[in-house]
Amino acid sequence: MSRESYGPRTEAWAALARHAGNLAHVSISELCEKESDRDRLFCTEAEGLWLDLSRQRLDARALQLLLELAEQTGLPDWIERMFRGERINNTEDRAALHVALRRPADLPLGVEGKDVMHLVVAEREKMRALADSLHGGLLKGYTGRGITDVVNIGIGGSDLGVVMAVEALDRYRMPGLGVHFVSNVDGVQLARVLRTVDPETTLFVVCSKTFTTLETLNNARGVREWLMQRGGADAVAAQFVAVSTNHRAMDEFGVAPERRLDLWDWVGGRYSVCSAVGLVVALAIGWQNFAAFLAGAHEMDEHFRSAPLDRNLPVLLALAGIWNRNFLSAGNHAVLPYDDHLHRLPAYLQQLEMESNGKSVRRGGEPVECATAPVIWGEPGSNAQHSFYQLLHQGTDPVSADFLLPATSMVDRQEQQDLAAVNCIAQAWALASGDPEVSNADPHRDYTANRPTSLILFRQLDPATLGKLIALYEHKVFTQGVIWDVNSFDQWGVELGKRLASGLQASGTRDALPPVIAPALAKWRSWRR
Amino acid sequence: MSRESYGPRTEAWAALARHAGNLAHVSISELCEKESDRDRLFCTEAEGLWLDLSRQRLDARALQLLLELAEQTGLPDWIERMFRGERINNTEDRAALHVALRRPADLPLGVEGKDVMHLVVAEREKMRALADSLHGGLLKGYTGRGITDVVNIGIGGSDLGVVMAVEALDRYRMPGLGVHFVSNVDGVQLARVLRTVDPETTLFVVCSKTFTTLETLNNARGVREWLMQRGGADAVAAQFVAVSTNHRAMDEFGVAPERRLDLWDWVGGRYSVCSAVGLVVALAIGWQNFAAFLAGAHEMDEHFRSAPLDRNLPVLLALAGIWNRNFLSAGNHAVLPYDDHLHRLPAYLQQLEMESNGKSVRRGGEPVECATAPVIWGEPGSNAQHSFYQLLHQGTDPVSADFLLPATSMVDRQEQQDLAAVNCIAQAWALASGDPEVSNADPHRDYTANRPTSLILFRQLDPATLGKLIALYEHKVFTQGVIWDVNSFDQWGVELGKRLASGLQASGTRDALPPVIAPALAKWRSWRR
Repeated sequence: MSRESYGPRTEAWAALARHAGNLAHVSISELCEKESDRDRLFCTEAEGLWLDLSRQRLDARALQLLLELAEQTGLPDWIERMFRGERINNTEDRAALHVALRRPADLPLGVEGKDVMHLVVAEREKMRALADSLHGGLLKGYTGRGITDVVNIGIGGSDLGVVMAVEALDRYRMPGLGVHFVSNVDGVQLARVLRTVDPETTLFVVCSKTFTTLETLNNARGVREWLMQRGGADAVAAQFVAVSTNHRAMDEFGVAPERRLDLWDWVGGRYSVCSAVGLVVALAIGWQNFAAFLAGAHEMDEHFRSAPLDRNLPVLLALAGIWNRNFLSAGNHAVLPYDDHLHRLPAYLQQLEMESNGKSVRRGGEPVECATAPVIWGEPGSNAQHSFYQLLHQGTDPVSADFLLPATSMVDRQEQQDLAAVNCIAQAWALASGDPEVSNADPHRDYTANRPTSLILFRQLDPATLGKLIALYEHKVFTQGVIWDVNSFDQWGVELGKRLASGLQASGTRDALPPVIAPALAKWRSWRR
Repeated sequence: MSRESYGPRTEAWAALARHAGNLAHVSISELCEKESDRDRLFCTEAEGLWLDLSRQRLDARALQLLLELAEQTGLPDWIERMFRGERINNTEDRAALHVALRRPADLPLGVEGKDVMHLVVAEREKMRALADSLHGGLLKGYTGRGITDVVNIGIGGSDLGVVMAVEALDRYRMPGLGVHFVSNVDGVQLARVLRTVDPETTLFVVCSKTFTTLETLNNARGVREWLMQRGGADAVAAQFVAVSTNHRAMDEFGVAPERRLDLWDWVGGRYSVCSAVGLVVALAIGWQNFAAFLAGAHEMDEHFRSAPLDRNLPVLLALAGIWNRNFLSAGNHAVLPYDDHLHRLPAYLQQLEMESNGKSVRRGGEPVECATAPVIWGEPGSNAQHSFYQLLHQGTDPVSADFLLPATSMVDRQEQQDLAAVNCIAQAWALASGDPEVSNADPHRDYTANRPTSLILFRQLDPATLGKLIALYEHKVFTQGVIWDVNSFDQWGVELGKRLASGLQASGTRDALPPVIAPALAKWRSWRR
């Protein structure tokens, strides 16, 4: 990448910085009153999603400059490089080809020209076979009884996406199948699940690319021990499925060869929900629905690859974020879905965005010269209105947010979903404009206003739409990574904590430890039972 | 309050600003190496909690100045005013006397001298009677069958605290009783609960002080309709409990007079988990455990009232927050519990802190001159390590965090809880110090370090400890509110959204709407089924 195409050193960036100064005293309401073609410019419909950026603190000129920024940082070329399977994850010398995971079988795609679709399709067929066999009542536990419960054991990218998707698609759940998740190392979820499920009828899916992840392996071993006591190695062979590349470790663990699903180094954990890691989703909602989910994600992939930048949803969403983060100094960004099915979307996007772009060095190792990923957080509306919206409206810091809103209730309570919608739109209004009946009589009722928000509207939260939303945010993150020139696909920042933890685990009570943690460690040891 | 005692105008504040400059280039590791009495100064044990501030970017002088700040803003006097029941919620002319809710019956406390303990005790006895009757099998549904499930219907302060507490105390749950929560307006949780529970054996607890809260009443009416169809008004009378002050509305709804619990205007929603709003917690864990929970909170109240400032846990926790927010410019603060039972603690604290102190005007209406509440967010460790810790370690913005760590596993998986503990301490270490084996060979592995964190260690997550933690944070929030001179007990910022939403609800499709929301509203209407 040439120096000139790095975001902060482009002409567009400098022009944006100047223009932000011009706009500093223009309110969102004024922009909306003044620009009569604002809905045409700032509202974009594609692939069944409607993205409304009209309540961003942007005018036409700012949007134009942001689009120039995307051009000047070479975004169109980067998109092609991703789809061509170039090794854009440069620090790990890998491609980032999660778009292959939801691609139709007959459209070739490869890593540097070497086709991967036959690999993808082979695993997809295995997932389908497992799902069909479970739903057809053919999948049995070690005593021959049919499977009634599935437990996914994974953490981070092997947990957040699948939890989010299973919750989001609750209305598509196969009847009579219990679905559970175990992620945390502390054993709390594990203990709860083992109190609940029947050892003869529960399938355990272990997701760990390396089959060495501390949390996942400790939980998997806990289950294995519990199952061994009841049914021995046969039970383990019958009721464990693993998504991993480490066959030796799976051999030792006792995972049957026909119960293994593969992954590849060009799929990062946080981009893996459409891979075999998504197995629990397919088991929960059935293959047909899972296929629709994949098709939705693929539709958004094609849109991202082919739509012009000024009509390109992931690009536009990313550019609004760049504007808020780098030119309006918003340090955090809230995700506010107005559908309780999406209650884990914020947690999923926390990983996707913060682990991908929460970085301070550029691809080549130079320090970044601008702010990168903000803190991503949120809860579903309208709950959040009764929690932290006070700060959104009247706090001292700039904030920004995405509202997500389905028009149709999936639980046949349309009147209640209409209340959610009206509240969502009213909040966007209040955040943008403040009180239309301006009165300064009581300063406690003054609203700062000028809080920029995006609205993502869709007809209903079905599997295809969820696939589109996931791909939308994945590509948003990639777009921002291109502009900031960070590698969105590595995560070196998490290595140190792991290393220090394993050192502490190995250390004796007499080992000299640095003063920075010596008191904490001593106190913990003294209180540990 | 005299002008001089407002935080930003005190001498201590000015001295802190200067001192922050002195410390700008001193690292946390250096502080820990240099100050040999750091554990004595920065680690405080009280009421079974151990608070470790040694990895804050504070030296002894900074701590001294922060304590002077607390003195100069009149904190000791404010604490007394709260406990004396003065109307410290000035914009609503109310006391803030949540400390009465967990006070022993024989210790008088009143609003401006008028005792309230007899009121508190009367409601407490009603709660106890309900709980004992449920657990003794005497509480019956309309067909005479015993109650098997309880559904709490409430939002915000009538939901976040009780959800958090019931999850946190999962190991203390009464066996065989299902507990469910319905809060969001969109009907998703309601539909799920009504698919699950038996209309003859389910008790519904409606919590709404005014009995007019949009979300709560819509959900309660949904249940009422469902129950009326099955058992008529008798079923409603038998299976609804309400926590409210609006008797007329409860009459109309059909809540039996003996099934009503009272609240008072001196209990704010987000401070109400120890009031009758906590009924579902008492039902879930039994009266004895609930009493222990109240006793724990009371213990922390007494500590807050009587401990010297430099040994006072809520005060110290608050001062660390003031330092990070106002002198080190951290705009967000993460809550990271290393016990999955506490997975909803961050959401609970979001409301408690952000709704209380996310404000831009002082008590008297003057604009604040400093940053107030940061964004509060978080997820349980170790899950979060595999999600957003990348940004904590290598992002571009200053961050701060609280770690919460119990030493003992509540689910008899001590080895796994030990892994959680070792990870927690290792993360605090890495955030403070970065890589002890410094090497700049690969900048992608560089750690910014100097990320300030607090550690709250306790023996185990039992009811008393949870009560203490809640009171700890409540009083932390109050302390910060005193220093910032904001009223921590009102929430005017949420009124506008409600008003605009009800206007939109009433508006016809032909009403002229402002350009700021006209396109969104039109699109939503066109997609609404």
